[in-house]
Amino acid sequence: MLQYELIKKDRDCSARLGNLKISHGIIESPIFMPVGTQATVKTLTSEDLYEIGAGIILSNTYHLYLRPGSELIEKSGGLHGFMNWKRGILTDSGGFQVFSLSKLRQITDEGVYFNSHIDGSRHFLTPEKVMEIEQQLGADIAMCFDECSPYPCSYEEAEKAVERTTLWAHRCKKTHKRADQALFGIVQGNVFPNLRQKSAGDLTALDFDGYGIGGLSVGEPKADMYSMLDLMNTVLPWDKPRYLMGVGAPEDLLEGVKRGVDMFDCVLPTRLARHGSAYTHRGRITVRNAVYAEDFEPIDDACDCWVCRNYSRAYIRHLIKAGEMLAHRLLSYHNVYFLLNLMEEARAAIKEDRFLEYYHEFMQKYQF
Amino acid sequence: MLQYELIKKDRDCSARLGNLKISHGIIESPIFMPVGTQATVKTLTSEDLYEIGAGIILSNTYHLYLRPGSELIEKSGGLHGFMNWKRGILTDSGGFQVFSLSKLRQITDEGVYFNSHIDGSRHFLTPEKVMEIEQQLGADIAMCFDECSPYPCSYEEAEKAVERTTLWAHRCKKTHKRADQALFGIVQGNVFPNLRQKSAGDLTALDFDGYGIGGLSVGEPKADMYSMLDLMNTVLPWDKPRYLMGVGAPEDLLEGVKRGVDMFDCVLPTRLARHGSAYTHRGRITVRNAVYAEDFEPIDDACDCWVCRNYSRAYIRHLIKAGEMLAHRLLSYHNVYFLLNLMEEARAAIKEDRFLEYYHEFMQKYQF
Repeated sequence: MLQYELIKKDRDCSARLGNLKISHGIIESPIFMPVGTQATVKTLTSEDLYEIGAGIILSNTYHLYLRPGSELIEKSGGLHGFMNWKRGILTDSGGFQVFSLSKLRQITDEGVYFNSHIDGSRHFLTPEKVMEIEQQLGADIAMCFDECSPYPCSYEEAEKAVERTTLWAHRCKKTHKRADQALFGIVQGNVFPNLRQKSAGDLTALDFDGYGIGGLSVGEPKADMYSMLDLMNTVLPWDKPRYLMGVGAPEDLLEGVKRGVDMFDCVLPTRLARHGSAYTHRGRITVRNAVYAEDFEPIDDACDCWVCRNYSRAYIRHLIKAGEMLAHRLLSYHNVYFLLNLMEEARAAIKEDRFLEYYHEFMQKYQF
Repeated sequence: MLQYELIKKDRDCSARLGNLKISHGIIESPIFMPVGTQATVKTLTSEDLYEIGAGIILSNTYHLYLRPGSELIEKSGGLHGFMNWKRGILTDSGGFQVFSLSKLRQITDEGVYFNSHIDGSRHFLTPEKVMEIEQQLGADIAMCFDECSPYPCSYEEAEKAVERTTLWAHRCKKTHKRADQALFGIVQGNVFPNLRQKSAGDLTALDFDGYGIGGLSVGEPKADMYSMLDLMNTVLPWDKPRYLMGVGAPEDLLEGVKRGVDMFDCVLPTRLARHGSAYTHRGRITVRNAVYAEDFEPIDDACDCWVCRNYSRAYIRHLIKAGEMLAHRLLSYHNVYFLLNLMEEARAAIKEDRFLEYYHEFMQKYQF
């Protein structure tokens, strides 16, 4: 199940405020979904994420299918029971991971053969198999199995991927049965406007609960991504949520919101944490740098998260230099909070028809 | 400052219930001190430790002196300010680490030359220098610089270490000035009863705030450790706290309590966590083992910690197999809780003069 209610649009741009009703709660959009690839948002617990204010997280079908296996997760009460998470979950279909992580892929219209990146074992995923796995995982929102063309690629290659994505979307829609789980189609088409338009048309004809915008932020110029989003904003139905997949840089979240996107996910906040970096309202900083050795200020003086209220840059830098895992945890907490807070600020701005003002203010301060 | 109040002794053995008043609070003893070697109890935050019920933690002078440096920590408000910890801290003197971790040591009565295990740089620690560092760190309790003889070693070697430890204790006592910081002497003597007795006599003559029992649990037979503790119980003053250094196996904690020990510390709970192991009331288990793959029970069904209330063995095993840091965090939390809870149970038993009964019940169930 999924109900999307458009509460209001900003007066001066396409930014939209909405309510997303899913099996595990109601989420105000636009929203950022922290990524728990392997049934864990790296270093954080469910309680941390409740405290940070996450209403929905993403987990990866590809990873969970390979380890620990979707049958095991089903037995433990689905992903919610397995990882002890009481709010929303969206599962990716594994399409992107099959193309980006696994080796020796072989694609046919039937499905994809690939070798596991963990142990090299051979697997075959079809739209039907992916629906079976996602229904076992039992997330609130499942994504259709899609083919994501690389960047750059030829028009013909991108066209073939769009056709296959449409074919597979039909089969996913036909196979999917769980009434408590919403199903989203994924628009492909690379950076070719008419392919994007065709893909969106094919999928909206199938009337999904929502639409992913896939295959962006994979190396193309930012201008191309933004123009694809402008296009999507004109062709996707206004009464369904739009989800820009894998995008999570602060500036891109705001660019997406401005163009009518409702949902985002990205591994960036936890990945940056592992590399000793943090978001601040003035831009990203590398906390491990020597300049912070005796800096007893919080990571971001404009942030009111629990980490910024309690720990200094100097302490976190020490933890990084000493190889202490707590560094990853503190930086992950802050970085995830930063993006959720950014979306909260964006929603507040839309409510008051001042999103563009907020956008410009943020962009002026934020160095990227 | 430190005031020790002996509340009561168990009727049937030497187990003692006490109140330890330090600069940051009052702690009921016997107590286990989680170890935060590098100004962090690995993977856990101060809030976790408050929740677990830790009243005092240990941190290591040797490590903090080398990185990030005690001047930096002093500038940030001492260890309490640096790591955002509002309860008690005890700092080890670095004696044990100089002998166990560093290379190219050269010991004289003046002090110890050694090379840093981090970058090979050359350092010289004297009792005076260690007191300076510990006062900069500003823990509630500082330990004297001591020489810890290895096991096995000759009588002559152990005797020399005892003499030096006494000499250095004099110099520490003379140098130490901070009124808000207690100072403990450390009894050495290896497994030689008359050396232990001499060391205890030398140190008690200096009237320290408390006494560490050092150089045990370093490879000697358990029976030797227990007989040394029996001896200490007869020679150390009853009105001062006794601290068995570096000992933390559950069975050894209870053996120590039975022999009048008040304080313990050990890296074991967090180290075991990193190796995928956990304490339970039936003994240690290796959660990473395949037998737990579909075990949806908590780590320890007799434990009421937050991890056992929320997460299953199957989930934690998955995290371990997937290389997820959250596994270390969950297991560290549980393992530290387990030992603090063990001490809480021990204190409750002493209150009711049934420590021996509790001891036998625990030992019967616990496989080690």
